[in-house]
Amino acid sequence: MTMPSEMKALLLIGDGYARTPTASVLEAMEPYLRPGRIAVPTPGPTQVLIKVGLASINPSDVMFVKGQYGQPRVKGQPAGFEGVGTVVASGDEAYPKSLIGKRVAFATGVSNWGSWAEYALAEAAACIPLLDTVRDEDGAAMIVNPLTALAMFDIVREEGEKAFIMTAGASQLSKLIIGLAREVGFRPIVTVRRNDQIASLKELGAAHVLNEKASDFKAVLREVIKAEQPRIFLDAVTGPLASTIFDAMPRRARWVIYGRLDPEPTIILEPGQMIFQHKHIEGFWLSEWMRQFRDRRGPAILEAQQRFSDGRWSTDVTAIVPIAEAMARIPAELAKPNGKVFLRP
Amino acid sequence: MTMPSEMKALLLIGDGYARTPTASVLEAMEPYLRPGRIAVPTPGPTQVLIKVGLASINPSDVMFVKGQYGQPRVKGQPAGFEGVGTVVASGDEAYPKSLIGKRVAFATGVSNWGSWAEYALAEAAACIPLLDTVRDEDGAAMIVNPLTALAMFDIVREEGEKAFIMTAGASQLSKLIIGLAREVGFRPIVTVRRNDQIASLKELGAAHVLNEKASDFKAVLREVIKAEQPRIFLDAVTGPLASTIFDAMPRRARWVIYGRLDPEPTIILEPGQMIFQHKHIEGFWLSEWMRQFRDRRGPAILEAQQRFSDGRWSTDVTAIVPIAEAMARIPAELAKPNGKVFLRP
Repeated sequence: MTMPSEMKALLLIGDGYARTPTASVLEAMEPYLRPGRIAVPTPGPTQVLIKVGLASINPSDVMFVKGQYGQPRVKGQPAGFEGVGTVVASGDEAYPKSLIGKRVAFATGVSNWGSWAEYALAEAAACIPLLDTVRDEDGAAMIVNPLTALAMFDIVREEGEKAFIMTAGASQLSKLIIGLAREVGFRPIVTVRRNDQIASLKELGAAHVLNEKASDFKAVLREVIKAEQPRIFLDAVTGPLASTIFDAMPRRARWVIYGRLDPEPTIILEPGQMIFQHKHIEGFWLSEWMRQFRDRRGPAILEAQQRFSDGRWSTDVTAIVPIAEAMARIPAELAKPNGKVFLRP
Repeated sequence: MTMPSEMKALLLIGDGYARTPTASVLEAMEPYLRPGRIAVPTPGPTQVLIKVGLASINPSDVMFVKGQYGQPRVKGQPAGFEGVGTVVASGDEAYPKSLIGKRVAFATGVSNWGSWAEYALAEAAACIPLLDTVRDEDGAAMIVNPLTALAMFDIVREEGEKAFIMTAGASQLSKLIIGLAREVGFRPIVTVRRNDQIASLKELGAAHVLNEKASDFKAVLREVIKAEQPRIFLDAVTGPLASTIFDAMPRRARWVIYGRLDPEPTIILEPGQMIFQHKHIEGFWLSEWMRQFRDRRGPAILEAQQRFSDGRWSTDVTAIVPIAEAMARIPAELAKPNGKVFLRP
């Protein structure tokens, strides 16, 4: 197969980490990304080159391009942590070679050749050959969110209390977790920002859906917490909302921070609760989880693929944006609620 | 022995918990305590009645009388969590009976008959018969601080990094921990509020003593942390000082809150550190530790008594205040740095 020598990509403008943190919202593309042409990379011995079909845009991508994610940016390289596509070239080892011609879901990990490009590099071990029954939209969002959902729901399950709380309840990730919870009779309490998100989340399996903008939010929150006694708080937001929730939670509550959607200061309202009520604050990062639980990764990926194949899980699509329109359209598409935005290179 | 029917005591004014938290400083006695006369209590089967020799005033006592401690106040009862004295009566069981006539260190625990009185009730199991080599001043402060010191230094030792950080470095508790650390070659980094506290703490075994009021405090803190890589942060203060320290600490740092000396808001400056640097925030409470580690309590008390006997530990005395002068003098004595204040009933 003849490969072009150059490709289109969305390239990182910043290098390393941001000096001052900003909101997790992508207010504009221009400060962080530029469209460009760059040489098509050559896979190393354990890698494959993938012709990208669809690339997903996750909250972690936004944090990364803004220099606020747990790994440094490399200026001039393509962004994008995951996608779906066809393997078109590989390194010399047997397993990468065996993937040639296959449609795969892939995570770019530490390769620094992201998915927001016509071609991406990934470790063969970070590729999942897809069943035909998995849609491209599900394959492109097969790794980051599903593994995070399975890993975080493990935390809930191990704690043992059936009720738990999540902010950003209408996110794709929260929806996956709500689905997992329903299957085993657990009771997710989730917060949203709009009333029109409530019905569909209840239908999906949320025990309570609270609008954080409602005037009686705090009173309702206290009532629900008193009745349900949740121990785990999976938090994508931080700031005053998260502080209020953690403060209202019972003894031995664990605040698990995995995102920072609100740049407002995050206050521990009652430090005495850490002392006398044995509360904890901790974080969750998929990369750390994968390091700690290597043996969970394979089964979790298989489970995700089965769930997307049989329809238990399905990715809601807000928009599929051609790469040529990305600079103009992405921020506005990301601002829309409820679904996922994809790039088509 | 003939017992009086009434006794002098400092009695709690408040009931239950405070509605709004205030500083951990005892700004005045009058809102919280009143001198009074009350019937001498009768010990239950497992209890002893102690003629109090000295009662200590710990930060936890101050939090308790202000309604900010982990157990509710009972209006009209005497305050005071620990002291030293002579057992003058007991319940019917054999062990309490065997303590009659003995000088003991005692903790009042949940008896609601505190040590700030001529007589106090304690569970016999919460009394330690003292060696003659232990001074009254050490006996009266034998339980709360020493057990907390031993328990919290256990946390440091289990984490494994030799360097660790403490706020309120000149407190009696911090000094005990510094002594423990020196014996096994650990490196305490402590903060103080005055330069004249630095030399004596270094002599005691602190690797670094930082004045939090110094203009270059933050720069020095960052340098010391970079060089020493402390993982555990034992914090009595919270507020902006503690936030700054935790923010500067390396990956996998654990902020262990055991006091709340600063009522200013406690902010998690970079919630992303919880996610990407695997940092944790937790609390320490002696009562919780004793529940969790019952088998550690006896050996720890023995170790404390040996340390006070052989001079490895010694309680610095700021003042011994007769109970008749308590209302007028206690707040001012507590405001003096470096030592412990005792009540003599």
